[in-house]
Amino acid sequence: MKKIINDPFNFVDESMEGILAAHSNLLKAAEGNVRAIVRADAPAAHKVAVATGGGSGHLPVFLGYVGRGMADGCAVGNVFSSPTSSQMKQVTKAVDSGRGVLYIYGRYQGDMMNFDMAAEDCAEDGIEVQTVLVTDDVASAPREEWQKRRGVAGLFFAYKIAGAKAETGSDLSSVRTAAEKAVSNMRSMGVALGSCTLPTVGRPTFSVSDDEMEIGMGIHGEAGVQRCKLENADQIAATLVDYVAEDLPFCKGDEVAVLVNSLGGTPLEELYILYREINRLLTERGIQIYRPYVGRYACSMEMPGASLTLMKLDDELKELLDAPAETPFFVQN
Amino acid sequence: MKKIINDPFNFVDESMEGILAAHSNLLKAAEGNVRAIVRADAPAAHKVAVATGGGSGHLPVFLGYVGRGMADGCAVGNVFSSPTSSQMKQVTKAVDSGRGVLYIYGRYQGDMMNFDMAAEDCAEDGIEVQTVLVTDDVASAPREEWQKRRGVAGLFFAYKIAGAKAETGSDLSSVRTAAEKAVSNMRSMGVALGSCTLPTVGRPTFSVSDDEMEIGMGIHGEAGVQRCKLENADQIAATLVDYVAEDLPFCKGDEVAVLVNSLGGTPLEELYILYREINRLLTERGIQIYRPYVGRYACSMEMPGASLTLMKLDDELKELLDAPAETPFFVQN
Repeated sequence: MKKIINDPFNFVDESMEGILAAHSNLLKAAEGNVRAIVRADAPAAHKVAVATGGGSGHLPVFLGYVGRGMADGCAVGNVFSSPTSSQMKQVTKAVDSGRGVLYIYGRYQGDMMNFDMAAEDCAEDGIEVQTVLVTDDVASAPREEWQKRRGVAGLFFAYKIAGAKAETGSDLSSVRTAAEKAVSNMRSMGVALGSCTLPTVGRPTFSVSDDEMEIGMGIHGEAGVQRCKLENADQIAATLVDYVAEDLPFCKGDEVAVLVNSLGGTPLEELYILYREINRLLTERGIQIYRPYVGRYACSMEMPGASLTLMKLDDELKELLDAPAETPFFVQN
Repeated sequence: MKKIINDPFNFVDESMEGILAAHSNLLKAAEGNVRAIVRADAPAAHKVAVATGGGSGHLPVFLGYVGRGMADGCAVGNVFSSPTSSQMKQVTKAVDSGRGVLYIYGRYQGDMMNFDMAAEDCAEDGIEVQTVLVTDDVASAPREEWQKRRGVAGLFFAYKIAGAKAETGSDLSSVRTAAEKAVSNMRSMGVALGSCTLPTVGRPTFSVSDDEMEIGMGIHGEAGVQRCKLENADQIAATLVDYVAEDLPFCKGDEVAVLVNSLGGTPLEELYILYREINRLLTERGIQIYRPYVGRYACSMEMPGASLTLMKLDDELKELLDAPAETPFFVQN
């Protein structure tokens, strides 16, 4: 296992301790718990808070987007595992300024169970909690059941939109409505060229032959929609655009935000080769790119592969997308 | 070869076309050449320009740091190969506002030959060019010959300091002096856990056994100082801190900028496990971290591994380090 780690069972805590040491100007641990991370200035006064959480191993998601203009706090689970409801409760209490908390996270069973328990507990303490599930992964359920899909890289857009809305001073229902619009307007599809290795397991979770790839694989290695021969970049771009664009569908005249995301191991050079063709294909369809993001936004540690997310924009979403943000892993002026 | 590419011989041009398509608000091609990239507003009026260049495959270095507060332009070579002098000349002419151009690049023979030729040609056209070579890689020459070393991740700090100084309106000699101070104050050391694969070759450049690592390997796979058993993160941190701190040397009471850089394949989680121990070790030595940077700053495509760079700071360097910057791959408020 080619990893720079100590005891694999300390992987998450040590990584969190490093993050807190490096970013103490932006982040702090709620109640001293390195698995319950909140903005350094939490609770941010007079605004609705956005809280999230999920398993480790996906940096910058989830924790990396805690900061001004995005999320207020994050509960941190073990690698690819849900955080506990008590961690979520610690986060919720630390971020609530009295105006309520919006939970935004990917639709996974473990997270749903724990977040719901935390929300119930917090309600008893007088904290109002509402929830928006991110369900952008086209590969994980049929089109008509899109609200049952898993959440993947679209989480980034959900934080960006909800966080910007919350910074305007809007109330909890308005922030939730903006986040819901973002989620219902976005779709993602990924392709994996190989596996990552869980530190405590020490060998790849699954294998993909040297000449194969898997379309639609989830960010924890969940089975995708098709295992096939490794295609070239332009073919992969076409496959991703077809799946994503035809699902919402995204149509001629639409303006979109684009996210071309590395699953971790795939370098920036390759992402831009993909973006080059995605840009051409969207233009050919009459879909206009309002703002592109290319890089590592939601990873599976060192997994080679990439994903495409599109979010259809209206005037409100454009304004919220353009708003400034400052987190340890994402800064926008 | 698990890469998302088309024809391997189009790797660089297609990647550049993608970058220009995604970042047209920040970048443009000088004279229509995608291998000669400059700030969208070049020549930036009334300031000294900073120009750089180098082989592809290292994103965000070199090209990714073209923007406000850092470099004004970059000549782009083939993977791991120097750009041509004519590309450098195109960049130089496009960025010069009449106040002269400072070349900053890593000390590699091919780059030196071509940059020197470009500087001579530009001098004939009345453009004053001065040069600062980045020589931060401790592994590549003995301590007393530090000015003969290769340039690696410290390039990021050199751009940051020189770019900020140029934005203040200082003259060419003052910008050069600031960059020289940054270079003479910085040292780097890396460790590679494996190889990357050149697109046109299709197989790893070298092999590292599953239980081995190489200390001091260059970012093109140049031989390091020691091949040894894979150590754990804390041991690797100690090795890197020992090499770097004892070379300048960095001493008790020094304030430093720290860069913990992934060579590409190593994920953020592991970088922070490294940073956690580097932070502890520097504190133990009485060296104070003024500002840390953790992430992918100078890569070798998908190579697993990491490097540590320290730069000793004085009041001028702190102020320049803290200045805002906005490039496609790095934003600081």
